[in-house]
Amino acid sequence: MNGAESMLQTLINNGVEVCFTNPGTSEMHMVAAIGKTTGMRSILGLFEGVCTGAADGYGRMAGKPACTLLHLGPGLSNGSANLHNAKKANSPILNLIGDHATYHKKYDAPLTSDVIGLSHPVSHWVKTSETSNELPKDAAEAVVVANGAPGKISTLIVPADCAWDESGEPLPAQPIPAAPLVSDESVQEALALLKNGKKTILLLGNLALTEAAIDIVDKVSQATGAQLFCDTFVTRLPRGEGRCEVERLGYFAEQATEQLDGVEQLIMVGTKAPIAFFAYPGKASEFYAEGSTLHTLAGVNDDAENALQRLSDALDANSLSPRHVKLAKKGEGKGELNPYTIGQTFAEHMPTDAIVIDEGATSGGGCYASSVTSEPHDWITLTGGSIGFGLPTAIGAAVACPDRKVIAIHGDGGAMYTIQSLWTMAREDLDICVVIFANRKYQILQVELARVGAQSMNKKTLDMLDIGSPNLDFVKLSEGMGVSATRATSIAEFNSQYLQAMKTTGPKLIEAILP
Amino acid sequence: MNGAESMLQTLINNGVEVCFTNPGTSEMHMVAAIGKTTGMRSILGLFEGVCTGAADGYGRMAGKPACTLLHLGPGLSNGSANLHNAKKANSPILNLIGDHATYHKKYDAPLTSDVIGLSHPVSHWVKTSETSNELPKDAAEAVVVANGAPGKISTLIVPADCAWDESGEPLPAQPIPAAPLVSDESVQEALALLKNGKKTILLLGNLALTEAAIDIVDKVSQATGAQLFCDTFVTRLPRGEGRCEVERLGYFAEQATEQLDGVEQLIMVGTKAPIAFFAYPGKASEFYAEGSTLHTLAGVNDDAENALQRLSDALDANSLSPRHVKLAKKGEGKGELNPYTIGQTFAEHMPTDAIVIDEGATSGGGCYASSVTSEPHDWITLTGGSIGFGLPTAIGAAVACPDRKVIAIHGDGGAMYTIQSLWTMAREDLDICVVIFANRKYQILQVELARVGAQSMNKKTLDMLDIGSPNLDFVKLSEGMGVSATRATSIAEFNSQYLQAMKTTGPKLIEAILP
Repeated sequence: MNGAESMLQTLINNGVEVCFTNPGTSEMHMVAAIGKTTGMRSILGLFEGVCTGAADGYGRMAGKPACTLLHLGPGLSNGSANLHNAKKANSPILNLIGDHATYHKKYDAPLTSDVIGLSHPVSHWVKTSETSNELPKDAAEAVVVANGAPGKISTLIVPADCAWDESGEPLPAQPIPAAPLVSDESVQEALALLKNGKKTILLLGNLALTEAAIDIVDKVSQATGAQLFCDTFVTRLPRGEGRCEVERLGYFAEQATEQLDGVEQLIMVGTKAPIAFFAYPGKASEFYAEGSTLHTLAGVNDDAENALQRLSDALDANSLSPRHVKLAKKGEGKGELNPYTIGQTFAEHMPTDAIVIDEGATSGGGCYASSVTSEPHDWITLTGGSIGFGLPTAIGAAVACPDRKVIAIHGDGGAMYTIQSLWTMAREDLDICVVIFANRKYQILQVELARVGAQSMNKKTLDMLDIGSPNLDFVKLSEGMGVSATRATSIAEFNSQYLQAMKTTGPKLIEAILP
Repeated sequence: MNGAESMLQTLINNGVEVCFTNPGTSEMHMVAAIGKTTGMRSILGLFEGVCTGAADGYGRMAGKPACTLLHLGPGLSNGSANLHNAKKANSPILNLIGDHATYHKKYDAPLTSDVIGLSHPVSHWVKTSETSNELPKDAAEAVVVANGAPGKISTLIVPADCAWDESGEPLPAQPIPAAPLVSDESVQEALALLKNGKKTILLLGNLALTEAAIDIVDKVSQATGAQLFCDTFVTRLPRGEGRCEVERLGYFAEQATEQLDGVEQLIMVGTKAPIAFFAYPGKASEFYAEGSTLHTLAGVNDDAENALQRLSDALDANSLSPRHVKLAKKGEGKGELNPYTIGQTFAEHMPTDAIVIDEGATSGGGCYASSVTSEPHDWITLTGGSIGFGLPTAIGAAVACPDRKVIAIHGDGGAMYTIQSLWTMAREDLDICVVIFANRKYQILQVELARVGAQSMNKKTLDMLDIGSPNLDFVKLSEGMGVSATRATSIAEFNSQYLQAMKTTGPKLIEAILP
């Protein structure tokens, strides 16, 4: 058994069963090892950002890591932006990066680069195996780290000779470390804040946003009057019928500061204090008033549900009923085809247990607002701000949950970064409906240009933020990669195309031409 | 004048006149500054790998840097693979990376990452400006570094407040440092080797591959009998009528070792000793025989032409005539549509002063071999091994040389990494003909799989190297981004489509379906 084979069996023994891959010569023994086993599904991407984004979506929905298989430094680089998003999402991912044979690195061949240096910024853990014998052990360590709550990015660099040389036996399943419990002091401090009569919010993220955790914190809210918010960008948010509503903080400082108006105390659970996405000249970076009391009940890595349960216990709130949302359908969109009418139709026909991938950018708000009382669903957002996450993440979500419809709502600009994703959707026949909001500009940037006080709105400036000229034809792009597609230029066309997509399975793209 | 404006004028004063951009909010003041001036052309890419690859192509043909404008760490990451290629090509490039305002970094906002850590592996020089006043000076330093022979990658990280705060006056044009002259000892040692009667080659790269340098080294070859070779992957190679022929080393070790059979001495000029692209089990990494004498006459950064001239002077070779290739056309391809017949037609109708971008991979050899006696042209190859360089590099070459036809010969797999390039070709109406070799597999990997001794050729393994399910439709992909396209399924169709493309200007794609 060579190093690649023993490593692979170790991963399989530890529950890793999907590999999103775009391999090259230095990964050929790992490719061959995957080819020889039935324990690892291999899914090919035409670009590495597809693979890493898919691993992010898979990790968010499966709650365990897939692996990626990437080709030296450049392969990692191509996948790096979506690893950045995944790192900010605390998704579990295990990257396998093939590198030159140990003895070949000194020659500085064309593909030689500082793989370790490129790995650290997008990983929680990085290791280079030094021999084939160490490779299975390193792989076991990588998978344990990746499974650390709420999820970590492990990057294992595998020199080609470590993969092809003879190795030892694979390692069995390793214990997965539980999320640490928070201290009693932290719970007591939160309790004291919740009881002192001051205006208080609970800000939720990561492990505090499971369905169970939200049910508990909703009781805490009822018992104390504290308002519930979650981060603007969430890894995964259960919503719709049968779930409690949690208000998302607004993206722009003026929205968020209005939401937090008068708040004196912020208790963070599974996240950190709320701050602006970008700095703006003369505006504060912090969303909370100066002098506010901040308390982190549970950090990002802590057992947030346990901390909330202890709060609920201490407040005698367990007997309260969580305030679950009731299903309320409000009808399809009518009138103009725009993000709001699209959102109405999107919400109306969303099937039970859909997974929504939201990279709608300036056009996505209508879908979110309209679907508060839709069928139960999960909402997944862009946590790291690097656009081009939505299409790949949809792939991973669909692989993790083959019985659930995935709906990716996507800005046209963002969709172009990893447009190659469509091909993998077709190849794997994934049940994904992609809705493209075609406004033919980087609209968020036209908004931001004014907001940052950059006083130049002339044609040359705006052209840098405009992606019409020529217009992209997403129907042709989609068909060019094997995904059937239609164009909607009216709300009636959209309604019919979307309903049809919800009634059938398999990949489908709808390009909605916005005014 | 704010920091962005003073920085920009400093760049313009130093000859930087093109910006390949994919900006975001943190770059808005740089966008506005570009919008206000006529001195900097702005070219938008839909993906950052398009921008960096275009800057590589521009740098190779213009001999001076363009700038890129990239959005924080993830924007850099998306451009990183083509910066890797550019770094191995020694292309001049100046990256401008917007970052969070200095005072905002501590909050670890979603787009915060280790930009410096991500920059170093793909840059020769990295600096973060600390104040708006320092920004113009930092920009001047960056452009001087980038212009260092043969070309360097400078990465200047610009925090948003350094761009928007008030700054001082822009700096004037800075002197460009000349390439260092090699020592007399180095020339004398090369002379001694060339005269000692042993079998010797001169291996050329970078600055030794200008038309002038090749004319000189050809005389040295005539005077001494030393054979001329160049690197397998060259930044830019002048070929065809009126140029001297230089033999490229083969990609595979068995080709290269046969070419170098019996060679006792290797003299490197503008490059380093020849080694294998990848390691293979049980095979040597070095292409030269053990015990060979290696001498570097001129390193990558040295003035190679001057060193060669001094050799020629010492050998009394100046009066010799360089052995220039004579134009010899051999007719269009006939019979089957395959890489060889395509190559014949390609060579036959190549216009004078064409620029060929070669990412043909396993299919490109026919074009190279057939065009030895074509019209004079420049040949540009993939220097860093990261596929997806060809389409973007064609953009940059076309921007640098608007009066020359650019022909990009491209494998289908590689073309998908940066397929967004087609849109920029359409938007800027660039005179580029893209020929896609559609063999619907990563053919090089199927070859390499066997070569590395990975003994698994079953369907699951081969599927990981196959991109034919579903087939990509490059005509639809191209039309979807505004580039007119045709499909050739016979050599007659190809001949007619290619001839038509050579007779007209503007972007055009031909998808050649290979057997």
